[in-house]
Amino acid sequence: METMNQMIETQLAHRTIREFKAEPLDQGVLDTLFEAGRRTATSTGLQASSIIRITSPAVKQGLAEICRQEYVARVPELLVFIADQYRNRRIAMEQGESGRHAGDMDRFFQGFTDACLMAQNMTNAAEAMGLGAVYFGSILNDPEATVKLLGLPPFTFPVVGMGIGIPNEDPQIKPKMAMELRVFENSYETYDGKYLEMLTDYDGEMEAYYDLRATNRRSDSFTRQVAAKLSHSIPARAAIMNAIAAQGFDLNLKGVK
Amino acid sequence: METMNQMIETQLAHRTIREFKAEPLDQGVLDTLFEAGRRTATSTGLQASSIIRITSPAVKQGLAEICRQEYVARVPELLVFIADQYRNRRIAMEQGESGRHAGDMDRFFQGFTDACLMAQNMTNAAEAMGLGAVYFGSILNDPEATVKLLGLPPFTFPVVGMGIGIPNEDPQIKPKMAMELRVFENSYETYDGKYLEMLTDYDGEMEAYYDLRATNRRSDSFTRQVAAKLSHSIPARAAIMNAIAAQGFDLNLKGVK
Repeated sequence: METMNQMIETQLAHRTIREFKAEPLDQGVLDTLFEAGRRTATSTGLQASSIIRITSPAVKQGLAEICRQEYVARVPELLVFIADQYRNRRIAMEQGESGRHAGDMDRFFQGFTDACLMAQNMTNAAEAMGLGAVYFGSILNDPEATVKLLGLPPFTFPVVGMGIGIPNEDPQIKPKMAMELRVFENSYETYDGKYLEMLTDYDGEMEAYYDLRATNRRSDSFTRQVAAKLSHSIPARAAIMNAIAAQGFDLNLKGVK
Repeated sequence: METMNQMIETQLAHRTIREFKAEPLDQGVLDTLFEAGRRTATSTGLQASSIIRITSPAVKQGLAEICRQEYVARVPELLVFIADQYRNRRIAMEQGESGRHAGDMDRFFQGFTDACLMAQNMTNAAEAMGLGAVYFGSILNDPEATVKLLGLPPFTFPVVGMGIGIPNEDPQIKPKMAMELRVFENSYETYDGKYLEMLTDYDGEMEAYYDLRATNRRSDSFTRQVAAKLSHSIPARAAIMNAIAAQGFDLNLKGVK
């Protein structure tokens, strides 16, 4: 059990790593990461996710521009996780079936979930080997541009990007909100009118975190961030369903305006 | 590094566990699991996921019926992961903001992703402690029924269920398809017309797996399963976008029929 607890300690000490040493990962390390990804649980066994490994500087640069984060182009290992029902549809078609339900939205979400689980399993594997990782949700800043850049066929969709490498920074652990706000028993519990009060201590922790950290210091709190982030939208992000439909998925809307 | 490699070995030996000893998890183990969940990476720090812990036999039974899997009601620890922008919207509103972009579909997907990452991180923590876990994607067999059963407010949505406990079975590792079909370099690679040929060996492995396993033996292959699964749909599952819109999310469709 002792060795296992070390993994738990690693999980509890999770930090996003954004600055890496320039050296690439060993092939053996890479193979292990992908193997952990391949062994991840998958919805009804369909393995409806894939990975695009980005090695081309031009494609890295293209993704960095979509992400609007220059360091995307600099990560030693850059992966994009894909919801993938294209392969399964083709497997059905080669047997004389239509495979048409590959485009159902529940199949889309199964692929999306498969891709997320695989990504987190690989994050855990990376951290277990002493590596660092960063998620890039920003690949969805412009989903259609990401689809085009990666040559994604119908019935696939980009889910999340990830950078992996040998850490070249040692950031503090970012505080998280209290468990009582995240875990409920048997039904969802609302705290209308009490959230700010319940988050006072956490706001204090976050203010101290932002004030004390080594880089990118600022004066900010969690609740102010939430209000600011939810007061605007990025049109191409908010229109993500259009990009999903454009990939051939059947939104199957009945009675929705 | 040696202790860490043990975690990788655990990941590579992942099996879904469906039969558990009747004993409940220790409170300390539970606390550790939730703490691993809370520490998971989250999109732009918004922590847009929550967990409903199911302890009520009636709610367990209700979920088992939605899942159409009787053993859902018997798992020692039953969790449902939720995409949650309700809390963030209220946090914005308490500051005099509208929080209206909590209902944008990119915010929905951030919450959905947060929930999946948290679920897999907790699966890894469970397995690191020698426990077993099973995902229940089947909570989405009837999304609106799950929303109602768990009292989910607007701007939340069920993502995936999970059972955790002390394993009471020791199943074989299920074979997975070859890496060359899952990982591509720089752009998606299609193998139209060649999938069945490329999957011949894997089909053989899966046939042996199904034929040799201790319980639920059958004659089946991967490619036959794919064709069968994609030849039909469950209407309430395929209509998932209606349930998402009913929770207040703005599908924001432009030019989609």
